[in-house]
Amino acid sequence: MDEIKQVIIIRTDLKMSAGKKCAQACHASISSSNRVRKTDTKLWKDWINSGQKKVVLKIQSLEQLEEIFGKLKRNNIICAIINDAGLTQLEPGTTTALGIGPNLSNKIDKITGTLKLL
Amino acid sequence: MDEIKQVIIIRTDLKMSAGKKCAQACHASISSSNRVRKTDTKLWKDWINSGQKKVVLKIQSLEQLEEIFGKLKRNNIICAIINDAGLTQLEPGTTTALGIGPNLSNKIDKITGTLKLL
Repeated sequence: MDEIKQVIIIRTDLKMSAGKKCAQACHASISSSNRVRKTDTKLWKDWINSGQKKVVLKIQSLEQLEEIFGKLKRNNIICAIINDAGLTQLEPGTTTALGIGPNLSNKIDKITGTLKLL
Repeated sequence: MDEIKQVIIIRTDLKMSAGKKCAQACHASISSSNRVRKTDTKLWKDWINSGQKKVVLKIQSLEQLEEIFGKLKRNNIICAIINDAGLTQLEPGTTTALGIGPNLSNKIDKITGTLKLL
């Protein structure tokens, strides 16, 4: 079977603690995977049953994140942008993270391939 | 409505990168929330619809984590222990994280109340 994974992208140009980064990553993971579960249940189940692989990448600006987001949309890859409620650490509405898939690794890699691991 | 949240506990005595911590937190978040979705769908929906609040806490040893896990079990609070596959950074089977709930905040706080934010 082709590898299925979820990719989470975290902004590193914001001042977020380790715990804040983890919470934003979890929001992205839950939100994107819920969308996949509803629209492509088989893909979602295959991902869960194969160990729910996740890769966490970093990105240094909102502009770069939005560029990735646009490419995902144009390629019909389900994803979820996370905007923080801003109760702690950040201004309300700040975009902090992007959850992608789960989807086939080779489809995601074509779009996120140049980003480095967090 | 009483506050509903998910708590994620991450071990800080292991040598995990920021990205590794985020990935383990996401495993814990997905695994525990899936269990709640299947067994108490209303609670899960209320959590999603109220913004899926998450709090990420730190713990300094496996023994402390197992103590929390035991208390959760005795109180019938749904949770998920995460053991890393060990392909990178850690020995196979290393316990890295614990996802709790979502559940009522005051129920979880009675058990995790002394732990600090990551």
